[in-house]
Amino acid sequence: MNDLALGIDIGATNTKIGLVNPDGKIIQFDQIPTPQSPPDTTISIINDTALELLDTEKLDVSCIIGVGVGFPGAIRQPEGIVEVAPNLRGWGKVELRKLFCEALGREIFVDNDANLAALAEYKWGAGKGEDPLILFTLGTGIGGGIIIDGKIFHGAWGGAAELGHQTVDLNGRRCKCNNIGCIEAIAGSHGIVARTWELLQKDKGSILWEMMNGNFDFLDAEMVGQAAEEGDVSAIKVAQETARAIGIAVANMINILNPQCILLAGGMTEWGKELLLEPIIEEARKRAFKSHFKSCRIAYATGGIQSGVLGAAALAFQKM
Amino acid sequence: MNDLALGIDIGATNTKIGLVNPDGKIIQFDQIPTPQSPPDTTISIINDTALELLDTEKLDVSCIIGVGVGFPGAIRQPEGIVEVAPNLRGWGKVELRKLFCEALGREIFVDNDANLAALAEYKWGAGKGEDPLILFTLGTGIGGGIIIDGKIFHGAWGGAAELGHQTVDLNGRRCKCNNIGCIEAIAGSHGIVARTWELLQKDKGSILWEMMNGNFDFLDAEMVGQAAEEGDVSAIKVAQETARAIGIAVANMINILNPQCILLAGGMTEWGKELLLEPIIEEARKRAFKSHFKSCRIAYATGGIQSGVLGAAALAFQKM
Repeated sequence: MNDLALGIDIGATNTKIGLVNPDGKIIQFDQIPTPQSPPDTTISIINDTALELLDTEKLDVSCIIGVGVGFPGAIRQPEGIVEVAPNLRGWGKVELRKLFCEALGREIFVDNDANLAALAEYKWGAGKGEDPLILFTLGTGIGGGIIIDGKIFHGAWGGAAELGHQTVDLNGRRCKCNNIGCIEAIAGSHGIVARTWELLQKDKGSILWEMMNGNFDFLDAEMVGQAAEEGDVSAIKVAQETARAIGIAVANMINILNPQCILLAGGMTEWGKELLLEPIIEEARKRAFKSHFKSCRIAYATGGIQSGVLGAAALAFQKM
Repeated sequence: MNDLALGIDIGATNTKIGLVNPDGKIIQFDQIPTPQSPPDTTISIINDTALELLDTEKLDVSCIIGVGVGFPGAIRQPEGIVEVAPNLRGWGKVELRKLFCEALGREIFVDNDANLAALAEYKWGAGKGEDPLILFTLGTGIGGGIIIDGKIFHGAWGGAAELGHQTVDLNGRRCKCNNIGCIEAIAGSHGIVARTWELLQKDKGSILWEMMNGNFDFLDAEMVGQAAEEGDVSAIKVAQETARAIGIAVANMINILNPQCILLAGGMTEWGKELLLEPIIEEARKRAFKSHFKSCRIAYATGGIQSGVLGAAALAFQKM
């Protein structure tokens, strides 16, 4: 028996596979585009890729510590069934755990990708040993993970930590989840692009017009961040509102869960700390109870794009 | 050794003491006005009352299962020190657990009163065995308790479950906690009275004018509920906005914690179910994820004004 765990991170676009040691170091890594085939075929292709990766280290699947799989959707626990998969067509109600177990010929553990990113940060990352730990994933959507007593907190059946879908603006924008005023509707990348576009109608001098070559389809959250860094007035306003919405959600979590640590992860954290992290902390400071705010560290996560693979491996280590 | 526990519920106005059996029945009960003296004197008076109560059953403090104490403030755990006591002057930083242990001559356990009300509902009440369980206390302030894995969830140091202080209206009313747009600022009794008063300026025909005898000081949340039951337009509007704000907070908790059960307790639940509970459920249904909403039962708590004593006793049973 080796001391390595296999972490598989199924994303909407790419699937990443890593062989991880007990210190959280990835010693072998591979990545494939996530097959857009039916679930059983997709699992079979991922499985083959995983076995090839093990083969490069002259390992087979029976001689590693364990296998963890991350998935971009809500997973019913402990069964490991996909409850909702907003970004992968045809995966609703798929028995992910069972299918993977059959394909690999051994037990595996499966969880939501944001939950696993939180676990990776707790085990090896920016929030090592801090408990409770809350992680926000800031990207196209806004999600999250909650660690309590060193484990992923699942709630009744695995649906916990939909942190992006808390109402902070009761008369606000319509969210993709159909609610009104979710933080995702403001601070998810769709919300950012929509708000920027509205401001640009009255700001023909914005550098964003040049950056996107006059084509709305090129406008994205990263570009808004860049324009804000360069001093563009509309982009700065959008960035401020974005940080404010996230800061409100952070304050809510501080008052509701009294966490020791809140981490921010995902594509949005490529925005500089002055543009995003610092105003988020400032907003949370203004809104949360002093006694609660003081005892909560707020920082960027460190796992980056590997956090899914690391979290899946962390789950495998934890379950053994 | 008897099989009874002593529950002590220190309130801002009254302190209740009950001797509770393992089925959650109160077999002896006493109540005194909470002494407005320094904490050590207050504890001594409460202690004497408790010993007298035990004496009526020919018991002394060494021969019961345990003693639990509830307190209306944030308690630092596991030390049992009062961190914040908004409604009791001079109690900040008081070593409540230590002082009570010394006075009674035995170990006691202390927790926030809303946390204990949640525990009572979980052990004997409307949410028996449902996990996670969340309880909102709706009164002058809005607070709450969270039960996870059968125990009170404390967070980093005991400050968790400040459910009334989540922002749901980012440009909304100023809350007593100094934040803007907390649900307490809308749906706590101060918020209800303030909103009603605003509407009454343009509604000289409201029956509330007669009910309060033209004197604003008589206006309270209970009266608004009565007027709404009687069809008063302004009161109905206030009631609808109240239920909406609480419903949003309920939806937030459903998405964040995926609870099995959410209970509503406190003075506000004297409003009829049609006026409060049903519109809260409807608002939560509209806003929460379907999969999460479906698996969460939302109901009124059953502990009533005894829930503090029951919860304190439940804590004593649990710790033994």
